[in-house]
Amino acid sequence: MKIGDKSYRSIWLNRDGWSVDIIDQTLLPHDLGIRTLKSVEDAAGAIRSMQVRGAPLIGATAAYGMALAMRTQADDGHIERAAGMLLATRPTAVNLRWALSRMTEMLHPLPPNERSDAAYELARFICDEDVDINASIGRHGHELITKMWQDRSGKSGAFNILTHCNAGWLATVDWGTALAPIYRAHDSGIPVHVWVDETRPRNQGAALTAWELKAHGVPHDVIVDNAGGHLMQHGLVDLCITGTDRTARNGDVCNKIGTYLKALAASDNTVPFYVALPGPTIDWDMADGVAGIPIEERDPGEVTEVQGRLASGETGMVKITPDGVTARNFAFDVTPARLVTGLITERGICSASEQGLISLYPEEGKKESR
Amino acid sequence: MKIGDKSYRSIWLNRDGWSVDIIDQTLLPHDLGIRTLKSVEDAAGAIRSMQVRGAPLIGATAAYGMALAMRTQADDGHIERAAGMLLATRPTAVNLRWALSRMTEMLHPLPPNERSDAAYELARFICDEDVDINASIGRHGHELITKMWQDRSGKSGAFNILTHCNAGWLATVDWGTALAPIYRAHDSGIPVHVWVDETRPRNQGAALTAWELKAHGVPHDVIVDNAGGHLMQHGLVDLCITGTDRTARNGDVCNKIGTYLKALAASDNTVPFYVALPGPTIDWDMADGVAGIPIEERDPGEVTEVQGRLASGETGMVKITPDGVTARNFAFDVTPARLVTGLITERGICSASEQGLISLYPEEGKKESR
Repeated sequence: MKIGDKSYRSIWLNRDGWSVDIIDQTLLPHDLGIRTLKSVEDAAGAIRSMQVRGAPLIGATAAYGMALAMRTQADDGHIERAAGMLLATRPTAVNLRWALSRMTEMLHPLPPNERSDAAYELARFICDEDVDINASIGRHGHELITKMWQDRSGKSGAFNILTHCNAGWLATVDWGTALAPIYRAHDSGIPVHVWVDETRPRNQGAALTAWELKAHGVPHDVIVDNAGGHLMQHGLVDLCITGTDRTARNGDVCNKIGTYLKALAASDNTVPFYVALPGPTIDWDMADGVAGIPIEERDPGEVTEVQGRLASGETGMVKITPDGVTARNFAFDVTPARLVTGLITERGICSASEQGLISLYPEEGKKESR
Repeated sequence: MKIGDKSYRSIWLNRDGWSVDIIDQTLLPHDLGIRTLKSVEDAAGAIRSMQVRGAPLIGATAAYGMALAMRTQADDGHIERAAGMLLATRPTAVNLRWALSRMTEMLHPLPPNERSDAAYELARFICDEDVDINASIGRHGHELITKMWQDRSGKSGAFNILTHCNAGWLATVDWGTALAPIYRAHDSGIPVHVWVDETRPRNQGAALTAWELKAHGVPHDVIVDNAGGHLMQHGLVDLCITGTDRTARNGDVCNKIGTYLKALAASDNTVPFYVALPGPTIDWDMADGVAGIPIEERDPGEVTEVQGRLASGETGMVKITPDGVTARNFAFDVTPARLVTGLITERGICSASEQGLISLYPEEGKKESR
C-alpha cells in the first residue's frame, strides 16, 4: 500500500540481499521509522516488542528470522535454537508456528551450505504468498459487501463497517485481512464508513487502522472500545469485520481482546459479524478454541500507561492509574463460532464450523484427526 | 469516606455558610484539588467540565447551584434561568432534573426573601438523603454478596466482582452506589477482589474507582474495557455491579458507555449482573430506556487524547490518533432490562422491570401513567 506516493510492504529484503527492513509499528502513527533486522535475535526482538505485529506479519518476520539465522550458522542445532527463540516470542498467533514449521521442515533435509539461500527463498515466497492470500480475501469480502450494499438499496447514507484492532496491511505483508475488503469496496465506489475501535491497551485501532484508512482516503471515525454495542443497538453498524490470530478447527476465532464483546453485540442486534483470515491462521489441531487456545498475558504497564504524542510533538507516555494500583493485561480473547456469521478466506466464504472450513480446505478433512 | 486520616464527602458547604467546596475530579488520581463554587455559573461549569460527575453528585451539585443562585437574586425569573442553566449541562442523568424540580417546586411558593435559606436547607437535605440512600444500597448489596459468597463455599480464592466506570463515593455524596456493597463486603471479611474496567474515554475506572479502592484497601486489578468478556468466559467473575445514570420504568438502565457490552458477556456466561441505584435515578416517565433515553455525545477530543501523569510528574495529555483522523464520543449506552439480573435500591433488591420497581416504590404505581 502507499504512504504518500511511495509503495510499501510492512517487511522487505534490503538491496544488500540479506538484511531485512520493517516498519517499526511502535512509532506509528506519529513517526514512520524503518528498522533493519540483521540477526535472528533482531527478528525475535521485533516480534516480542511488537515493532511487527499481526499474525501474518509475525509469521513472515519469523521466516526471515530463520533466514538471518542460517546466514551466520547453518547446522541442525542452530535451526532448532533459532526456531525455539522465535517461537517463544508470542504464544497466541498460530502463523508463527506455521511459518517456523514450514522453514524447519524445508531446512533439515538440506546440506548446511544450501540452507541460507533456501531459507531466504522460502521467506520471500511466504511473503509473496501472504500478499496473494490477502488480495484474494479482499476480492471475496468485496463481493460480500457489494451484495449487502445492493440489498439495502432503500436505505440512504454510508455503509457502516465496524472493525477491531488492526487487521490491515500493517498486520500482514500487504493488503491486510479485514481491511482488504474495505479497501476494495471503497475503491469500487461503495460509500463505506468505518467505525474504528481504538483497541486498548495498545490502541492499534486508533494508531494503525485510523492511519491506514486516512492514508487511503476511507471515511472513518475512531471510537472507544465501549461504543460498539450502542452503535449496533441504534442501527449504525451494517457489518462487522475483524481479523483473527488463530482459528480453531471448530470455527472459534481468537483475536485481540474485546472482539468477543463486539461479536456478542452483533449477535444481539443481528448485525452480520465476519472474520477475515488467511489459511495459515487455521489451527487444524485445535478442536475447541474457547477451551484450548492459550491467551497471552502481557505487561500490566500497557494498561496503566498510554503512549501518544505529547504537546511538545515528541512521543511519550502518560500514566492513567494512581501509584500502587495493580492491573492485568490479557491480550486476546476467543469468540465462539456460534457468534460468527462467516469466515472470509482466500478460498471463499464459509460458515464458522469444522464443516465450513473443510468445505474450503478439503485436503485437511482427508488427513487423520490429529 | 477517608482520604488518609481525613473524612471527606465529595461536596460540602463551607464554614462561611454559603460557598460550596467540591473535589475537582478531573485532577484525580494524581492530585487532590478542592474547588470552591461561589455562583450558579460555577456550579454549572463544574458539572459541564466533569469536575463533579456521577448522577447523584450531579444532582447534589445542581441543588447547591440553585442555592447559590437564590443567594444573589431570588425572583421567579432567576429561579427559571438558574434551573435552565443547570439542566442544560448534561442531558442523560435524570437526578439532575429530579433535584432541580424538587428545588424549583419548593422555591416558587415561597416569598423571595425566604428562598435563599430554604434552598440551602433543601440542598443540604438532598445531600444527607443521598448519603442515607447509599448506605442503605450498601446494606442490601452486602446481603446479596454475603449470600453468593456462602453459596459458593466449595470454591477457593477471592470473590471476584467486575465494575464499570465509577459508581463509588466520588460519584455520589458519600458511600457510592455500586461500590457501597463492595466496601461493606470487604469490611465484613469477605475476600472481595474487584476487576476495575478502566472506562474509556475518561478513564473514571482507572483514575477514580482504582483510587477509591486502593484508599480503602480493597484488592483490585485495573483491566481494559475489552477484557471483561474473556474473564467471564473463564469463570473469573462471580458478580458484576454497576451504577446507572437513569433507570427507565421498564427496568432498562442507562450507564457509562460499554456497560451494555459487559451485560451481554455476563448474560452469555450466566454471571449475575446487578445494577445499584438510588430511587432518584428512576425516570418514571421513561417507558422504554433503549428507545427513549437521550445519549450525550461529547467532544471527540476525549477519545483522541488521553490524560494522565507525565514522566515529569505533571498532569498532561497524549494524542493517540494521527492528525486528521476523526472520532465520535458517545458517553452512555442503555442496557436492556432483560440483561439485568436485579436492581439494588435503598428499599431492597427487585427485578429489572416495571413490576419489580413498583413493588419497591408502590406510590409510583398508584400515580396515573404520565
